[in-house]
Amino acid sequence: MNSTDPEQSVLAAATRARQAAAELATAPRTAKDAALHAMAAGLMADSGRILAANRTDVDAARAAGSPETMLDRLSLTEQRIQAMADGLREVAALPDPVGTVVRGSTLPNGLELRQLRVPFGVVGVIYEGRPNVTVDVAGLCLKSGNAALLRGSSSAAASNEAIVAALRVALTTSELPADAVTLVPGNGREPAKHLMRARGLVDVLIPRGGAELIQTVVAESTVPVIETGVGNCHVYVDAEADPAMALTILVNSKVSRPSVCNAAETLLVHRAIAPDFLPAALVALTEHGVVVHGDDRVRAYRPESVGPATEADWATEYLGLEIAVKIVESLDEAVAHIRRYGSGHTEAIVTGSQTAARRFAGAVDAASIMVNASTRFTDGAEFGFGAEIGISTQKLHARGPMGLAELTTTKYVVTGDGHVRP
Amino acid sequence: MNSTDPEQSVLAAATRARQAAAELATAPRTAKDAALHAMAAGLMADSGRILAANRTDVDAARAAGSPETMLDRLSLTEQRIQAMADGLREVAALPDPVGTVVRGSTLPNGLELRQLRVPFGVVGVIYEGRPNVTVDVAGLCLKSGNAALLRGSSSAAASNEAIVAALRVALTTSELPADAVTLVPGNGREPAKHLMRARGLVDVLIPRGGAELIQTVVAESTVPVIETGVGNCHVYVDAEADPAMALTILVNSKVSRPSVCNAAETLLVHRAIAPDFLPAALVALTEHGVVVHGDDRVRAYRPESVGPATEADWATEYLGLEIAVKIVESLDEAVAHIRRYGSGHTEAIVTGSQTAARRFAGAVDAASIMVNASTRFTDGAEFGFGAEIGISTQKLHARGPMGLAELTTTKYVVTGDGHVRP
Repeated sequence: MNSTDPEQSVLAAATRARQAAAELATAPRTAKDAALHAMAAGLMADSGRILAANRTDVDAARAAGSPETMLDRLSLTEQRIQAMADGLREVAALPDPVGTVVRGSTLPNGLELRQLRVPFGVVGVIYEGRPNVTVDVAGLCLKSGNAALLRGSSSAAASNEAIVAALRVALTTSELPADAVTLVPGNGREPAKHLMRARGLVDVLIPRGGAELIQTVVAESTVPVIETGVGNCHVYVDAEADPAMALTILVNSKVSRPSVCNAAETLLVHRAIAPDFLPAALVALTEHGVVVHGDDRVRAYRPESVGPATEADWATEYLGLEIAVKIVESLDEAVAHIRRYGSGHTEAIVTGSQTAARRFAGAVDAASIMVNASTRFTDGAEFGFGAEIGISTQKLHARGPMGLAELTTTKYVVTGDGHVRP
Repeated sequence: MNSTDPEQSVLAAATRARQAAAELATAPRTAKDAALHAMAAGLMADSGRILAANRTDVDAARAAGSPETMLDRLSLTEQRIQAMADGLREVAALPDPVGTVVRGSTLPNGLELRQLRVPFGVVGVIYEGRPNVTVDVAGLCLKSGNAALLRGSSSAAASNEAIVAALRVALTTSELPADAVTLVPGNGREPAKHLMRARGLVDVLIPRGGAELIQTVVAESTVPVIETGVGNCHVYVDAEADPAMALTILVNSKVSRPSVCNAAETLLVHRAIAPDFLPAALVALTEHGVVVHGDDRVRAYRPESVGPATEADWATEYLGLEIAVKIVESLDEAVAHIRRYGSGHTEAIVTGSQTAARRFAGAVDAASIMVNASTRFTDGAEFGFGAEIGISTQKLHARGPMGLAELTTTKYVVTGDGHVRP
């Protein structure tokens, strides 16, 4: 094993993670929860070293000219480390998904069939986020019995190394193997590529980050991938909506946190309600600092503040204070527009009509449909999952917010007393 | 759209399937069941044309020197068409998975959360099997609300075309679109490659066939894949097994149908029971015509009939009357052997010990664990699913026999009365 060969280093790390996963798979909840508490304590005990490492990342990012918002996201404080440790303790308090019986029956021949939740094994995560993602992912993987193989962004490399070092030291004091949490070694883009090709060693790969990262992983990975996060979400205001409710939902969906994937990016308004709804909506959006791109009929309401919407606007996830607005002739046109431009994340309808709600919920193909509720509710914590490793926008395995159960696969255990097949 | 360009032809077919899928997604069960009955009647009505097309396939295969077993698998008869039609009617009788509430609750803020089963959309299937696979897959996809995009083997091309033509004519008499069942057009290997790259048009790709086909699809597809079928299954006879029960299970697992993926390929015997079990087992295997490859200790029992087992034997899925046999020191050694060589399909333990059964079921990582039962029970029909589109040996989405529920994804429908996120 030549540790200077990037591929060999990555495969060696994946192999160690795989060995750890075999131990984790049968670890009882008590051992996992104790390890999570030890990890939380370890973070706090090592906070000085973690903060020092983080300063080198922040200084390097500042020297490279990163914007203040990025520096803020990268920066750790004693308080943020405390929040990470608290997060681990919260995960410890959640129920263990492993061993849950998903389906069970006694077959006509007397065989007892049980389908149980079991861990995946090794979960690879490639992410661009803040250093706290390292702790979140490690905690969720460990609780669900998986070994975490982590590849963070190079801008947070020193922080992530210090954090993982602290977690691994804590694990050595627990009953679980330190290799339950492993950083993918090496610099540059090579290691991530080898991780994507480690089929057989890595059971699933979850990219967390921008559209470009996710597309690269989807295109290059031979390891099964769970796609996350891109959200070109729509709010459709139906002919039979209550305009006041629609306005509240629109503003919350767009402006409560515009940088996240469950924020609304396009407003579709039924022609019949436009006169009663749009003028106030456009004023409210402008007052909240939202730049509005509208079709011709929308612009006619407020030509002074609404710019023209282009084809690109319908397809864009702004992730900021911008919105595209279109008047549609019917619910069917709204559904067709969403089918064409939506990313399958969250689509909302505001309507007083039960029929319209049913038709929209049935015809729109997305992870979450909101009926008279803000798009911002698509979230693991809001859904009551206690924690979330990401929001899947694909259809295979998991769709929508992914909690601990979504980090498991299943196993059938079939018990007989000498049964053979006729 | 240039129909002579293979890529454009495939993408056009996928686009038509996608449009059909949007209709199928909201089709009620009554419409789907009626369409399945129409398809069954259509097959019978068109049996003359289907048999004639099949004869051209069989003649071509015979001229190309295909072995008799392959010719038999390719050949259709009036009776086999009847069986295909009966299969469609059986699928019609199964419950509709679409709309099943997988998870539901009222959140603390009063939002009503429902996670419902919904169809994938377009299911691509690449298969090498007999022409009846075309009908099986079309029926299961339609019942689960999916459009089927089918790519069979070139040796059955005329048969598949005649079958799909009959099914599509039948669909035109139903409420559902004919494009619910679509053949991928074109000759040679090109069309399958374009199918594998049709991400965004095809929601999931299921390869059914030999290991080579499956590996190609896994390596080349950007469409999410469900891997099926390879089974290097083990029977482990524990120290505390009843030798007579172990012998019955071994023989059934190995010889009842050796060509299928749930047949046993390796026998592992605990050292302590070997003297009481192996002599009779080796005789029984030989009497059933099974060629035995054993390690040195196994060979010592019957050197005249047991050849040496090589590294390749442990890794081989024989799919025929051959078996590799090894004596292990412990249950842990059996688990380690299975971890190294198993394909994650089905692993059986024969034991009277509850402790051993629990340890084996917990530690072995496979789709199915059989405790005192034949490996041959891993099967959708045996598990009571009514039908099966394949046996998944991967961990993402579905693991083990895949019935109608496994051909669906889910959608959250969240209903409020003006809820916004604080």
